Amino acid sequence: MTAAANLVAALHGPRDVRLETRAVPQLGERDVLVEVRSVGVCGSDVHYYEHGRIGSFVVEQPLVLGHEVSGVVVDRGPRAVKHAVGQRVALEPGVPCGRCSECRHGRYNLCTDVRFFATPPIDGAFARYVAIHEDYAFALPDELSDDAGALLEPLSVGIWACRKGGVGLGDRVLVTGAGPIGNLAVQVARAAGATTIVSADVNRDRLARAAEHGATGAIDVSERALTPDDGPFDVLLECTGAEALTSDAIRLLRPAGSAVLVGMGPGLEARFPIAAMQAREITLVGTFRYANTYAVAIALAAAGRVDLDGLVDAHFPLEEVDLALRAGRENPSLLKVVVGVNRNPRTG
Amino acid sequence: MTAAANLVAALHGPRDVRLETRAVPQLGERDVLVEVRSVGVCGSDVHYYEHGRIGSFVVEQPLVLGHEVSGVVVDRGPRAVKHAVGQRVALEPGVPCGRCSECRHGRYNLCTDVRFFATPPIDGAFARYVAIHEDYAFALPDELSDDAGALLEPLSVGIWACRKGGVGLGDRVLVTGAGPIGNLAVQVARAAGATTIVSADVNRDRLARAAEHGATGAIDVSERALTPDDGPFDVLLECTGAEALTSDAIRLLRPAGSAVLVGMGPGLEARFPIAAMQAREITLVGTFRYANTYAVAIALAAAGRVDLDGLVDAHFPLEEVDLALRAGRENPSLLKVVVGVNRNPRTG
Amino acid sequence: MTAAANLVAALHGPRDVRLETRAVPQLGERDVLVEVRSVGVCGSDVHYYEHGRIGSFVVEQPLVLGHEVSGVVVDRGPRAVKHAVGQRVALEPGVPCGRCSECRHGRYNLCTDVRFFATPPIDGAFARYVAIHEDYAFALPDELSDDAGALLEPLSVGIWACRKGGVGLGDRVLVTGAGPIGNLAVQVARAAGATTIVSADVNRDRLARAAEHGATGAIDVSERALTPDDGPFDVLLECTGAEALTSDAIRLLRPAGSAVLVGMGPGLEARFPIAAMQAREITLVGTFRYANTYAVAIALAAAGRVDLDGLVDAHFPLEEVDLALRAGRENPSLLKVVVGVNRNPRTG
Amino acid sequence: MTAAANLVAALHGPRDVRLETRAVPQLGERDVLVEVRSVGVCGSDVHYYEHGRIGSFVVEQPLVLGHEVSGVVVDRGPRAVKHAVGQRVALEPGVPCGRCSECRHGRYNLCTDVRFFATPPIDGAFARYVAIHEDYAFALPDELSDDAGALLEPLSVGIWACRKGGVGLGDRVLVTGAGPIGNLAVQVARAAGATTIVSADVNRDRLARAAEHGATGAIDVSERALTPDDGPFDVLLECTGAEALTSDAIRLLRPAGSAVLVGMGPGLEARFPIAAMQAREITLVGTFRYANTYAVAIALAAAGRVDLDGLVDAHFPLEEVDLALRAGRENPSLLKVVVGVNRNPRTG
Repeated sequence: MTAAANLVAALHGPRDVRLETRAVPQLGERDVLVEVRSVGVCGSDVHYYEHGRIGSFVVEQPLVLGHEVSGVVVDRGPRAVKHAVGQRVALEPGVPCGRCSECRHGRYNLCTDVRFFATPPIDGAFARYVAIHEDYAFALPDELSDDAGALLEPLSVGIWACRKGGVGLGDRVLVTGAGPIGNLAVQVARAAGATTIVSADVNRDRLARAAEHGATGAIDVSERALTPDDGPFDVLLECTGAEALTSDAIRLLRPAGSAVLVGMGPGLEARFPIAAMQAREITLVGTFRYANTYAVAIALAAAGRVDLDGLVDAHFPLEEVDLALRAGRENPSLLKVVVGVNRNPRTG
Repeated sequence: MTAAANLVAALHGPRDVRLETRAVPQLGERDVLVEVRSVGVCGSDVHYYEHGRIGSFVVEQPLVLGHEVSGVVVDRGPRAVKHAVGQRVALEPGVPCGRCSECRHGRYNLCTDVRFFATPPIDGAFARYVAIHEDYAFALPDELSDDAGALLEPLSVGIWACRKGGVGLGDRVLVTGAGPIGNLAVQVARAAGATTIVSADVNRDRLARAAEHGATGAIDVSERALTPDDGPFDVLLECTGAEALTSDAIRLLRPAGSAVLVGMGPGLEARFPIAAMQAREITLVGTFRYANTYAVAIALAAAGRVDLDGLVDAHFPLEEVDLALRAGRENPSLLKVVVGVNRNPRTG
Repeated sequence: MTAAANLVAALHGPRDVRLETRAVPQLGERDVLVEVRSVGVCGSDVHYYEHGRIGSFVVEQPLVLGHEVSGVVVDRGPRAVKHAVGQRVALEPGVPCGRCSECRHGRYNLCTDVRFFATPPIDGAFARYVAIHEDYAFALPDELSDDAGALLEPLSVGIWACRKGGVGLGDRVLVTGAGPIGNLAVQVARAAGATTIVSADVNRDRLARAAEHGATGAIDVSERALTPDDGPFDVLLECTGAEALTSDAIRLLRPAGSAVLVGMGPGLEARFPIAAMQAREITLVGTFRYANTYAVAIALAAAGRVDLDGLVDAHFPLEEVDLALRAGRENPSLLKVVVGVNRNPRTG
Repeated sequence: MTAAANLVAALHGPRDVRLETRAVPQLGERDVLVEVRSVGVCGSDVHYYEHGRIGSFVVEQPLVLGHEVSGVVVDRGPRAVKHAVGQRVALEPGVPCGRCSECRHGRYNLCTDVRFFATPPIDGAFARYVAIHEDYAFALPDELSDDAGALLEPLSVGIWACRKGGVGLGDRVLVTGAGPIGNLAVQVARAAGATTIVSADVNRDRLARAAEHGATGAIDVSERALTPDDGPFDVLLECTGAEALTSDAIRLLRPAGSAVLVGMGPGLEARFPIAAMQAREITLVGTFRYANTYAVAIALAAAGRVDLDGLVDAHFPLEEVDLALRAGRENPSLLKVVVGVNRNPRTG
């Protein structure tokens, strides 16, 4: 395969995305070149787009966003043997070093030398072509659409949350936040055997979507606060980053229950209900991305245990990435916006 | 409530079950008296019936069999407050001491002072009435039939197996044996998120039932042995006790996979493929009954994640317990036989 | 044995302890009557003494304090068979129900029906005699002094902290607070294989004691704050309840490290460094008393892996309980004060 | 550094070791060149020497044995930055791929693409120089001798065994086999908090060494079989591979106890006491090498928690590797034989 040019959408500063033509990426020995098909828009993409930074990660040179990616292998490095040209793949967008202590312990999501798509200065996938080590491309079975392939990434976040919380058979799970991650957390909790799954959010449309995806209860926290009668829960999957809601939710956990922090709030610190946490021996655990989730994500999606396509509410072509990045803010009920690349715009 | 008489079916020796009238059980302070409705016939009941013993447990005085039990609360001890008279309940048939080291560690199934139904010299539930501590009676929700209430006991075995094996999202599970326990193990594995579930048995009818209950593959091991191409699996749930099949199955586990031994074979010792187990760091774990499963079992059944009624192939009245105990041997394709008590015979 | 009278020291209100004569406790069927020998003074005793309450636990009727107890069996209930009269014992001071969900799961420290010494309205052990279920009396080997027997209780807190934090071979552990609990946490961490154990406190005497007990480093946080160069640590055992110190300490944890909250601060809420906890996937876990620690505590003490007698700085007789309760406040360098009962005062 | 020649001792066939001069290894980008100091003789080296194979691993071309290695960095690849020239290091002798599923899960000891010293066709360290990726060389603190650096490898086996068995505070541990691995398992169990550690072997000298290293009991199984009175134990660390002894030892485990299989017997299969394992829910786990142990091993040895030098009974120079490989067989009481390279022969 030879590709003369690689069209990308690069962020030059807040709300300044420009279409550019770059060289097609050079392939390392075991890299594959992937012609991109679907790229999901993540809240972090939107945050970079709005503010030009997330915390200490600052966009100092033009950055290609997008890290929820599926595509087709169109070329291979000289020692890449895992995927044939033509293979549809989903990309795990962070390639860790494989050698440090975190990697050796299987916690590669905490590798400090990871190269993660769309995290400065590593470019992401709002592009015609991206290259990645073949071990981080996963063959997509026919059951999965291109969009579903891209959404394996947020699905991985949901899997990781459930794993960290030990969600299992017969569990009662509270999921705060019913955006894409919250919706996926609901689905994964159900797939893991949870039988009571309550979704809490301020947006009725999102709550309705959570109910479609397996939530057995919904609480509109714009109308009323959580109360003890809403509980108890075995696990809290916190997907909002909202401080007060998180505290209220932790108080609903049963003795020895677990709270998993997925959502990120604006502050470096937050207040927690420490007396309740001590009296009930609550476990609180932070999460950062995920590890060893892609094979599981594919298995769940291919078996129909989770519904990824049902989260997608809008498509935009690569040429309209800025519209895609603004869509969610303009309509908060939109769950997931996907940028379709190398295909007919808007038809998915 | 006063009940003049308690009809029971007592085993006096191999193949010698006699209907007898005994006194209605006296109630301890926190006991409930339960009018029995459904009692499942377990392989252990059949073994006692055929041989008068199981290993070192010998029937030396008339023993009432039956430990898979549902019924209705009809009386309460003076300090029993948990269930109202009239409440439908399922019984967890083993009451541990609550004080020994095993109990304190939460492993109460290993309590050596447990009083377990139908284990000499403790009588079981082929009877009109049984008494039990109120904490071992679990309220049955309306969604569950009497039969389903009784089958929470073998369902508990399946839950325990999956828990011991750590079955979870996206797992590939091999279940050897497709009798009632194997069928339930298949169902629980599916409910826990397993996406590949292969059932292996010598009986085609049973394999077909496993497929109905969620098995994604079936191997008739009367026709061919397991081969490496059948694997790899993350977890083996072994429900046969067959030595050669177990060894073959263990060899199909992935590195660091787990084998859970549920089925019991005839011998005190068995051969295992130790070289493979060491090279791949396989974990092998024995199981004995279950602990902390009933609330989960009820949640799963009430949510429709498992199907218990679908396992029941025949009913007999209390007066025909001996027929019930012989039915499985006469027709190995029967999955579960239930003795219906205090209701119209054969109509369930 | 017959004992005419039971001298106790009862708290009637803040700073109002009175010596009283009560009846010797009646024995339940499996209770033992224990002639008390050593009772350690705990911070919670002091708090009740000073304030008449701890949070929602209010002293509304005269309360006997003291829950760190050793003594000698002098009588037995009719079915108590575990200990002979004359047996020296340490008492696990909380007797749980043994039947609830927490008890059945092995988390009996979270049993809401627990009867715990010196927690209103349950009397403690500043008394000549106490009664307890025989399974909560542990035979003291000859290697252990009466004082050591009493200090198995705070040792249990240290064991529980290390267990919750998963302290193990080669771990780097930060212990904030070098009071009795902090000192014991240091000792247990060392016994569990930790090789770097840094103690942080505001009191130089206490830091020196920690160093004697195995701390490999000491930080006087009255002189300087913790800095990144002090870390990283695998586990934090937080024994102060001080909000700012806890936050600083959490920031020193390695990725996927654990913080165990043992110390209790004044507030219901506290601020935590959530951004760091998420980015590094820190686990934070609350603790409440302990479960299944006494056999381990005895084994560690009898084997000389921990030094309990070395923590005891002062003795008072039962008649001077109020002095014992005030001693720590008057001299913050005192680690542990013990009330000696039924023996020569002040000679221990 | 330039080194004209690399003297190695290569195994050409059973009992046929020849001194040869080879080229000094070429360095990969991040490799270090290590001048070897100490190489421990392992049972696997002896087995290759005697038989020319271990199971399916066959010596088909001349193979340099030796995988317990310490030395000094004398050269570095162009991108190796971790160790300065002159740094004393111990080598973790297996370099895994870092990308496969096992590696990503932190189970890199099960990586099928691992390059492990002295495992055909990968050469080991009975040589003047070896090369290895810098991340698999660990800086040796001054407290550790060259011999101790080499013995971090078998120490890792002991650490891994204890980790797999969950050995912890107050545990009662049975270690079958008192050779080097058994002795190290005893030491590590003690360092991890075990308070009862019984060593069982057929050799009185080895049992005496185990007692010196922390065993609290010794059983000469050439004189008598294990009996129930020897137990119960929480964990069995099986370091013999002897089938009958293993079965006897498993029977001594408490309910829910764990047996860790370290020793390898001659057969592909072995008999286990399955009825006892099921009735008591014993966990049996195979082990293969180790993962993530070197940092811990160094910390334990540097802190004096384990004694490595005390295991070394004899030294031989590189030129006498064949004598070193025969020494153990000629005197079974020898625990560990070390080949000293690049230093004065026999003086260590």
